[in-house]
Amino acid sequence: MIDVERTTLEPHADIGVIGLAVMGRNLILNMADHGFTVAAHNRTTERIDEFLAGEAADATVVGAPTLEELVATLVRPRRVMLMVRAGTPVDATIDKLVPLLEPGDIIIDGGNSEYTDTIRRTSHLEGRGLHFIGTGISGGEEGARHGPSIMPGGSAGAWEHVRPIFQSIAAVADDGAPCCDWIGSDGAGHYVKMVHNGIEYGDMQVIAEAYDLLRRGTGIPTPDLAPVFADWNRGKLDSFLIEITADIMRFRDEDGDPLVEKILDAAGQKGTGKWTVISSMLIGMPTSLIAEAVYGRIVSSLVEQRLEAATEIGSPVEPFDDPADEVIADLHDALYASKIVSYAQGFMLMAAASTEHGWDLDLGSIAGLWRAGCIIRSRFLNDITAAFRRAPDLPSLLLDPFFRDEIAAAEPGWRRTVVRAVRAGIPAPAYSSALAFYDAYRSVRLPANLIQAQRDYFGAHTYERIDRPRGEHFHTNWTGTGGATSAGTYEA
Amino acid sequence: MIDVERTTLEPHADIGVIGLAVMGRNLILNMADHGFTVAAHNRTTERIDEFLAGEAADATVVGAPTLEELVATLVRPRRVMLMVRAGTPVDATIDKLVPLLEPGDIIIDGGNSEYTDTIRRTSHLEGRGLHFIGTGISGGEEGARHGPSIMPGGSAGAWEHVRPIFQSIAAVADDGAPCCDWIGSDGAGHYVKMVHNGIEYGDMQVIAEAYDLLRRGTGIPTPDLAPVFADWNRGKLDSFLIEITADIMRFRDEDGDPLVEKILDAAGQKGTGKWTVISSMLIGMPTSLIAEAVYGRIVSSLVEQRLEAATEIGSPVEPFDDPADEVIADLHDALYASKIVSYAQGFMLMAAASTEHGWDLDLGSIAGLWRAGCIIRSRFLNDITAAFRRAPDLPSLLLDPFFRDEIAAAEPGWRRTVVRAVRAGIPAPAYSSALAFYDAYRSVRLPANLIQAQRDYFGAHTYERIDRPRGEHFHTNWTGTGGATSAGTYEA
Repeated sequence: MIDVERTTLEPHADIGVIGLAVMGRNLILNMADHGFTVAAHNRTTERIDEFLAGEAADATVVGAPTLEELVATLVRPRRVMLMVRAGTPVDATIDKLVPLLEPGDIIIDGGNSEYTDTIRRTSHLEGRGLHFIGTGISGGEEGARHGPSIMPGGSAGAWEHVRPIFQSIAAVADDGAPCCDWIGSDGAGHYVKMVHNGIEYGDMQVIAEAYDLLRRGTGIPTPDLAPVFADWNRGKLDSFLIEITADIMRFRDEDGDPLVEKILDAAGQKGTGKWTVISSMLIGMPTSLIAEAVYGRIVSSLVEQRLEAATEIGSPVEPFDDPADEVIADLHDALYASKIVSYAQGFMLMAAASTEHGWDLDLGSIAGLWRAGCIIRSRFLNDITAAFRRAPDLPSLLLDPFFRDEIAAAEPGWRRTVVRAVRAGIPAPAYSSALAFYDAYRSVRLPANLIQAQRDYFGAHTYERIDRPRGEHFHTNWTGTGGATSAGTYEA
Repeated sequence: MIDVERTTLEPHADIGVIGLAVMGRNLILNMADHGFTVAAHNRTTERIDEFLAGEAADATVVGAPTLEELVATLVRPRRVMLMVRAGTPVDATIDKLVPLLEPGDIIIDGGNSEYTDTIRRTSHLEGRGLHFIGTGISGGEEGARHGPSIMPGGSAGAWEHVRPIFQSIAAVADDGAPCCDWIGSDGAGHYVKMVHNGIEYGDMQVIAEAYDLLRRGTGIPTPDLAPVFADWNRGKLDSFLIEITADIMRFRDEDGDPLVEKILDAAGQKGTGKWTVISSMLIGMPTSLIAEAVYGRIVSSLVEQRLEAATEIGSPVEPFDDPADEVIADLHDALYASKIVSYAQGFMLMAAASTEHGWDLDLGSIAGLWRAGCIIRSRFLNDITAAFRRAPDLPSLLLDPFFRDEIAAAEPGWRRTVVRAVRAGIPAPAYSSALAFYDAYRSVRLPANLIQAQRDYFGAHTYERIDRPRGEHFHTNWTGTGGATSAGTYEA
């Protein structure tokens, strides 16, 4: 039953939220905590009743059994936030809302939508006089309830109307700044959230590799790994994901054994990691660590093939010779250096996407938004924020003096870790890929001259020369008697 | 001037070819060599005249200044092959052709089209009673002229009409089989060509890494590397790309210096490599070596950033301690093992795509088509063909007894090579990524259990257990007092 008094149609609610799954409910409660009146709608209306009678019983929340009532309840310009499943449910809900709204009203999509959909929806709704915001929200259930990181993009004119609510409910960084600020036009907010999630895949992979190397390489029992991660969490690696890894290592199943060891090693995924890699391919920026993280999850999910391969091929592992404390110290450095590379790659991707889409992304601000509230929150993001504040146009974090020195200090342990992994037969794809990237990125000469020669040999693709200006293209008849090079402009 | 006699409109030409760039011209000459009469059309008609007066002067080729004349010249069912630039030119040409054709006529796209476009075009043209074939053609100019590898897919009913021409002009494998056979419906041919090209990216990358490690790690002068590759070309690595690498190493510029060293190390690309990676992400198969190859080209192209990084960070390289002959022998094994992994990954991708699209791909047949004519042709592909003939449903080449033993034999040198690269500071992303994949693929347990625990901790994504059947999902309150697990069906 709907409480009549609390569904009054007088426009008095500050914002409407559609979709009462856990993320929607928690955001509503968070808004109510900060003094906003929220109108709540769900397709299945029983959920509204349950919510109002339960979690929201003492909150400034009103139920709206229909979209008409929801809209009638809202002050203008109306703010309607969708917390529904990404994809067609978002379009379907927008289609139902549009006839009920008036010019200047604002639709907000708070789900994990693909940024290309957000670009399309922004254009579509702005064409009808409405505002549209696609916003990334990170922090899981806990973040939504007590302060997420919020990354809104879309119709810039709507920002002033949404800002007071979003910045109130967002997490707060150490320096007091809210973890929410305007990202950019159309799909910018969802794009940045996508890269955030891609980086999250990378962060989880570099931790997983440390765990695997410790477990298989040193044979330290799982519960004894908890202090290792807890210790790391007091230093440069201080972060939410390291913190929960320590919790997980010490968590015991009912029979007293470590629960994590009973969990099937087949990792799931929902899409934002692979979208990040797809974008990196389309835009042409090398997020190789994220790609290895996504592939790592895929390989883990090939459970039957792996077992067949283990039987057919065998999977012997040579435990490490070195003392555990050296292994652990080196692992710390490998994880830290790999993480620097991963963030460098992620920010390079965002910079290129910003140019491509005209978003004018403020990378320092984005790093700032990730310092608290979200899954990848860490002390480390303070350093990244500082680096981009020092040099907003920094082409890569690897070129920042602080990170240059950090990675240089970590380099010996990083290399020793990869060598150990390679010799032991324990995969460390993220550490080794990051190291290869680092070594390539700082190489004056790479072997791509051979690739260009090959392409010219079999496909007449032409090449440039180091002793001639860029833009001059040459083709050689490689099978001829030699020396017959011809200059020309590239046409293909 | 068009030769009137040779543009007679009596239907007598076996096939029409539109587009007289080098690939089109060479295919026409190849067809004429095999007794077919070809009608040649080009938008700029001067090219037709030049072609007929020049290269095609003595060939059974007739010029068709307009599409109407081209169509009128062809016997039925008409076979019209497009050799135009992929993308909108293909659609534009199809749109002009359709009104001129009759039911049962066949349009063939021989360009490097995206397979998704080919799926769309097949459906569109079959809806109008026409046949459509999208075919991959590999081998560059030389292959087109003297025998390419041809990978046709699309309207199965058209195959019998195209087969005599295509199988005549295709390359011939050692066992006498033509390197052309039917691949599958709609986009199958272009998909397989795309994966071929992705594998080609990988093949070029593993050779480039050998070159870089030899050059920077051993300091052997470039011309002295020619015998190394020539020697490899007499053994298991016998392949077109290794052969031309030897040619390239010994090729001298006008001043006598090795030409390859004067080529700018910024690799270009045209799209099929990144499309392969994008498909691997969408389908969920780990083509990590190809991804590293594509990223490797991208990093190479960041020339300014690399130079800045080399200055800022420095790029010291520690030359190898070991004797050159040991380094070379190990490199051979690293290249060979990495190549096995790359092909295993590529064929796993095609198998998954076959299931996804209902193509029923014959992987042994596809390997057979690549044995000659194309850029990746090699002795090695005989072994792959044999493996899939032994076991058509082989989940992975790594599980084939021959390749299992080959890779096991190469493993020590492979690991030593990666260790050398890591210690020296020379990037070997393909070798190290392939090795990490190999070690992961044969692991009974991977650390993905931790990733699942983390996902359940912060997002309630649930997990499966090794002591319970697949499909049962559990969620734990990780921050609780412990032991509180709950079973349930996954809903997200």
